[in-house]
Parts: sequence; structure tokens; C-alpha cells
Amino acid sequence: MRAVDLIRRKRDGGELTAAEIRFLIEGLTDGIVPTYQWAALAMAILWRGMTTAETAALVDAMLHSGIVLDLADIPGPKVDKHSTGGVGDKTSLILAPVAAACGVTVPMVSGRGLGHTGGTLDKLESIPGFRIDLDLAAYRRIARECGLVLIGQTAEIAPADRVLYALRDATATVESIPLITASILSKKLAEGIDALVLDVKCGDGAFMSRPEDARALAESMASIGRAMGKPVRALLTNMDVPLGRMVGNALEIREVVDCLRGEGPADLMEVSLELAAEMLLLGGVAADREAALDRCHAAVADGSALDRFRRVVAAQGGDSRVCDEPLAVLPKAECVEPIRADQSGFVGQLRAWPVGQASMLLGAGRTTAEGSIDPAAGIVLRKTVGDAVTAGELLAELHFNLPHAEALPAAVAMFSQAVELVPEPTTRPPLILERL
Amino acid sequence: MRAVDLIRRKRDGGELTAAEIRFLIEGLTDGIVPTYQWAALAMAILWRGMTTAETAALVDAMLHSGIVLDLADIPGPKVDKHSTGGVGDKTSLILAPVAAACGVTVPMVSGRGLGHTGGTLDKLESIPGFRIDLDLAAYRRIARECGLVLIGQTAEIAPADRVLYALRDATATVESIPLITASILSKKLAEGIDALVLDVKCGDGAFMSRPEDARALAESMASIGRAMGKPVRALLTNMDVPLGRMVGNALEIREVVDCLRGEGPADLMEVSLELAAEMLLLGGVAADREAALDRCHAAVADGSALDRFRRVVAAQGGDSRVCDEPLAVLPKAECVEPIRADQSGFVGQLRAWPVGQASMLLGAGRTTAEGSIDPAAGIVLRKTVGDAVTAGELLAELHFNLPHAEALPAAVAMFSQAVELVPEPTTRPPLILERL
Repeated sequence: MRAVDLIRRKRDGGELTAAEIRFLIEGLTDGIVPTYQWAALAMAILWRGMTTAETAALVDAMLHSGIVLDLADIPGPKVDKHSTGGVGDKTSLILAPVAAACGVTVPMVSGRGLGHTGGTLDKLESIPGFRIDLDLAAYRRIARECGLVLIGQTAEIAPADRVLYALRDATATVESIPLITASILSKKLAEGIDALVLDVKCGDGAFMSRPEDARALAESMASIGRAMGKPVRALLTNMDVPLGRMVGNALEIREVVDCLRGEGPADLMEVSLELAAEMLLLGGVAADREAALDRCHAAVADGSALDRFRRVVAAQGGDSRVCDEPLAVLPKAECVEPIRADQSGFVGQLRAWPVGQASMLLGAGRTTAEGSIDPAAGIVLRKTVGDAVTAGELLAELHFNLPHAEALPAAVAMFSQAVELVPEPTTRPPLILERL
Repeated sequence: MRAVDLIRRKRDGGELTAAEIRFLIEGLTDGIVPTYQWAALAMAILWRGMTTAETAALVDAMLHSGIVLDLADIPGPKVDKHSTGGVGDKTSLILAPVAAACGVTVPMVSGRGLGHTGGTLDKLESIPGFRIDLDLAAYRRIARECGLVLIGQTAEIAPADRVLYALRDATATVESIPLITASILSKKLAEGIDALVLDVKCGDGAFMSRPEDARALAESMASIGRAMGKPVRALLTNMDVPLGRMVGNALEIREVVDCLRGEGPADLMEVSLELAAEMLLLGGVAADREAALDRCHAAVADGSALDRFRRVVAAQGGDSRVCDEPLAVLPKAECVEPIRADQSGFVGQLRAWPVGQASMLLGAGRTTAEGSIDPAAGIVLRKTVGDAVTAGELLAELHFNLPHAEALPAAVAMFSQAVELVPEPTTRPPLILERL
């Protein structure tokens, strides 16, 4: 078997066998197939696509490039959620304790943020003491004890994905649906889950701006999950407007605690609990969606979800007082710059992409994979789409520390591109676009 | 400028600027742009193509990755010829002395053979003492003194092509017309020529089997040559049947000498002198094609072409008695296996590809770029398409040395796939398919 012959076949629109795909992935991991051959292959896959059988074989080969955890000794269903990433998207940290409180174990392996979208790990690390680099024994123990665990990808999980992802990032082959599917599913299935809920973000602030692309990814994930015996359900959700009112790592943890106390903004609560309800349904702990949603709301109302979050924060070394006095525990920025409305009217648009960019300029995000972030930096939105404003009223606050003061004018200018004030009342577009 | 952004633009069907292409080629040569990025880019180019302006910029960047020779101090026109490669294709070694005898200087930089097609350098090296690894000072001196010179690619000429060619070979991106164009033209223009004649082989034994692909390459070469101020004329020639009667390195040198003595087979003479005539026309030493052909025939008839060959062999260290007693000078195989007709009839087909493969099995060709060859091995065709045969009559002789005796049954079986005997008289298809 020669890699060049397999590249040629894919280039010409042909199909690769499972054995050939395994050879290519094993070769990538052990260096027998050089990265330049995989780069050409990745471009050919982006061009020609992959069949369901090929994509399933790719998931399987990448999954088995590392350890596949078996959580069968933990009672009850194990269900995780994956999001394609958005601005202000902290739903994972709300739905995981909610689902855990309802009897679904959530063994979550997350990533860091890159670009204008935040990462779950970065948000968690803004809690003093919180450790995301646990070994697999601790992962298993905390999942059992708390019903949820929140760690970063370890070297043992899907190592082929790590190599291939870096290569795709450098070769403009990230956007291939089969390669995205394989990257997500190989990591998630290695966690030892029974099922997966997928939040495919769609719109201005999302990786995929067009609904047809988001739908294609959701359908690919669902069909491959089905082929591998792991149910996948997907929601297509709107990401034209930032989710919630807080963007930035410590700020988003504040909002997570607000939500778990039942005091969160309606848009964020809706998306988080809809996703949690899907997890309950896939886990078989609720009979229908209405019952599932009711249970999720009850877990917030009775404090059991907040209690789960408090327990996992403590189990992972974090200061669990964050659940009671978040302002006292979380890092705060030295400076807050108010942004005021220059006219009266209604917020017609609050575009997620420039909000995410402005937050990144203030230090809340990374421009390169090696970059550092400032946990206190970010943006508090005082108005969102549909709200009425009067001239001079506060629209938002930009939070930053002095090392990023130089970037303030650029951040203000970027933020101003996000906001559009209109004379007529407006309504926010629906959040849940489709269920697949 | 980031390579990944340029790959993305080409992937999406966009156009690259000359400065961007220069950045990519310089980056490949000095290691700033890693090979995996170029591999993905090469696949994107194969997919999306390149405009004339992009291809011209690529030729220019690759040309200037090394030394560009200036032969302006040598009087008269400098014209070279390039062939896409065939079986039994020794036309270069016939047309170069013919053109030189007619007043066109031929400063030829050639390659080695790979696979079933032979390489000019390998053929020359079967002449005892002949050196193809001359430095550029000797190249210039011999071109001036003999009117032709025949060397291999040096490290100074188009080094970017060397890296890119190896990468394309490993990534199934050889077939891209703009990349082929850039590879050929960058090397040829570095020789310091004024114009180029291209022999695009088409058919069973050629790199391109379909006339439309061969035509596309010819048109690409012509338009880029024009854009760079170097006229390129192309002949599309038939490569369904081996050219001439000898396949294999020393055997082909024998046939070259036969041709230069005016005793060569008609097909080989026709293609060689048609190409030489195009060189005379491009060099401006003949008024029209008929006059050019007449001059070429005269250079064979009066011995001046053979004299040029004798001089260049001597100048490059070879035993020039090869021109007078080739059988005494050239290496001979220890064994000759006759292949006889199993029935009477006419040769309907003599397919070039299996003939080339059989010759390679006997030791005349390389299967990998590092492989060695046996100069004496090869095939003498006693019958070709259109000839009448009687049962038991000799069709061909397989020449080989004892280290390759094991491969004889496979070579005989391969050769038998080449031959088709039919009951009705046949004619050989036209050799010159198109002039572009």
C-alpha cells in the first residue's frame, strides 16, 4: 500500500477502504506517512468529500489512535455535548451541571479558544485553583462522584487528531465536513460516551455562517454517529448575536453562576436548557421533550444544578465560593470603558463577530495557538437586539487591564461596528433554527 | 503574507499575484514555507488550475530560484527541444546534431529516465567515457565549439523545481498542467535559449494518453512561452507504438548512429527531422517548413550531422568511435532471447507501454528514482505495426544480462501483451497528430 496511490484515488473522486484509511492514520501518527502526503490528501478530501463509510472508517481509525475510555462501570447514561463555537457561548458550563443533576453523567473533554470564539477550558481556568489537566484516573473518579467532569484533551486521547488538526489549520483544509466530523467524533467517542448532542452554531459569529453548511455538518455527524452505534442529535442555533450578556472568561463564569441560580438572561437559558433536554432524551431519563425541559428547569429552581457545579469546581481544585460570591472570587479588570448610545432608538443588530474581535483585542482571546489570555478581560453587554435605548445610555462596558490599554481605541472601533441602532422596534430572531 | 491564506484563496478558485507566487517559491527553497503547505497548495492548483498570468509568474519564480544562463556571447540562435517522454524516443540525440549542423545552437539540459520511458542522459552514459556532469563553464564552451551540448540538470539550475518535482511525485500532483508547464519551462529557460520546440507524446506509451490533455499542455506551454518572450512550438506526436526499432540505452545509441548515417527507420527519422525543422524555423535559419526539412535531410546526407555528434561525444569525454563502429564500442548483453510469431498475419498493434515495461524488467529502466540501470539491456523490434509476419518468424529480441535472467519470463509475458497479430493488412497511424 502506497500513500501516493491512495491520494491519487481520492483526488480522482474514488473511495478509500477502511484498511487504507487505517494505514493512512497509523502512518500519520508514527511518521511513516509524511505530513506533506497528508496535506495533499486533506485537500483532496476537501475537494472530493468522503462517503459515510469512509468517514466512519476515519473516525474509527482516529479514535483508536489513542486510548478509548470505558465508563461502563459508572451507572447511568453518559452523554456529552459539543459546540462548533460562538461568542459568549458558555452553554456547556450550564447544561453539564443541569444534566448531571437530572441523572445523566457528562464526562466532558473540552478545548481552548482560538480567534474570536472562547474556549470552555479558558473560562474554567479563570476560577482560582481550577485544574483542567487531570489524569484519566481522576477524570473517571470525578465523573462518578459529581456526575460531571470538565478536563482538557490529554495526550492519550485521539493523538492522530492533534497532528491532523494542526496540519489542517496550516493548509486551509479545516472546512472539510468529513474531516470536521472525524475530528469531533474521534475525540468525543474516546471519552466513553453513549450519545452526543451537537450545537451547530450558524451566523455572523460562527465558524459556519450559512445554514446549509451547518446542516450538512449536523447530518454528517448524525449519520456517522448512527453508523458507529452512538446516537447524535443536533440543534442548529443562531449565532448572529452574542449569547447572554457577558463575553470574556471570568465574566462568562459570573453569568454561568447567574444562570444556575435562575437569574440568567433568557436567550442563554433557552439554548442551554434546550441542549440539556436533548441530553436527557438521548440518555433515556425523560419520556419526551416537554418532560425533559421541565426536569431541567426544576434542577435550576431547586438548586441541584448549582450544587453539581459547586461539587465539580471543588473536586477539580477550584475555589467553590465562586458559586456564592463570584465577584469576590473571580479576577476583575483594572479598567472599565463605557460605550454609550449616540442616538435614541432600538438595537437592530449586535453582530457577534465584531463583539468577539473586540473582546479578543482587550486580551480575552488568542490570535495564535500559543498566545496567552487575560481572564479578567471582556465585554458586558447592557443592551442587546430588541432593547430600546436613549441617547447617552450605556450600551456596553469594555473590561481590560493596563497591558491592553493600547488596544482600547481599536476595540472601541471594532465594537462600534457591531451595533446598529434603528428607529423602529425590533425583535430578536429565533434562537433554535432547526432540530436534526 | 501567510502561506495558509494563499492556499485558501487558490482552494476557493481565486488568483494569486506574482509577488505571492514568488513568496511561495522562495519560501519552498529556503524552508520558510514547509513542504506540507506546498503539498496542499499543489493539490489546490491541480484542482482549480492557474491563469496564464499565474503560470508565467510561477515559471519566472522557479527560473530565478537558480542561475539563469546568458548565452548571448554565442553567435546565432539557441533553440532546445523537450519531449514529454516515450518508448524508444531517442529523437533528441538525432535532432540536436542535425539542428547544430544547420546553424542552430542546441544547449540541451536533459533528465534521467523513470518508469517505462527512457532518459537521454542514461542513453548517453552507455557510450564509454561520456560525461553528463559538466560544469557550466564546460557547458558554455562545448555549446560554442560543437553547436550542441548534452548535460544533466545541475544544482544551480532551477533548484525550486527539484524540490517541487519530488513533492509532486509523492503527492499525486504531477498531472497539473500549470505545474508541468512551470517545471519544464523554468529548467529550459534557465539554459539561456531563445525558443523551444515541444514534442508532446500522446497515446499508450505516453505520460498523457488523451489528445485533449496533450493539446492543453502544448497550448499552456505556448501561451506562457509567448508571455515570457520565448516562442514555443509544439508537435503532438503518436506514442501508441515504440519509436524506431530499438528500446534500451546502448541499443538506442546504435539506432541514433544509424539515423545520423541515413540508415534509420522511417518513423524515427520522420519525427526527429520534423522536430529539427521546427527548431530551424524558430531559430530563423530557414524560410519555411519545406526548406527547413530539406536542410535537415541534407545535413544527414552530407555527414555533417554525424560529424557534430562525433564532436560532441569527444568533447564530453566519450569514445567517438561509437559513430563508426557502434557495435564494437557499446556494451552488449550476454543473452538474447528471440520472440517468434505464433501465427502468420500482420502486426495490428505493438503497444508502447508493455514494450517499455518489458524493457524495464530486463534492466533497461528504473522503478525508483534511486535505481540503477543496465545499459546493454533492452529490446530490438524486428517487426512493427503494418509488417507482415509468418508463423515462427522473429518478432523481437530481448537483450539482457545474467543478473536479470530471473525476470525473463515476466518480460516475455509482458512483451506478448504488446503484440497483436491480425489477418488483414494494417497501416501505421500518422505520427504527427497536430502542430500547435
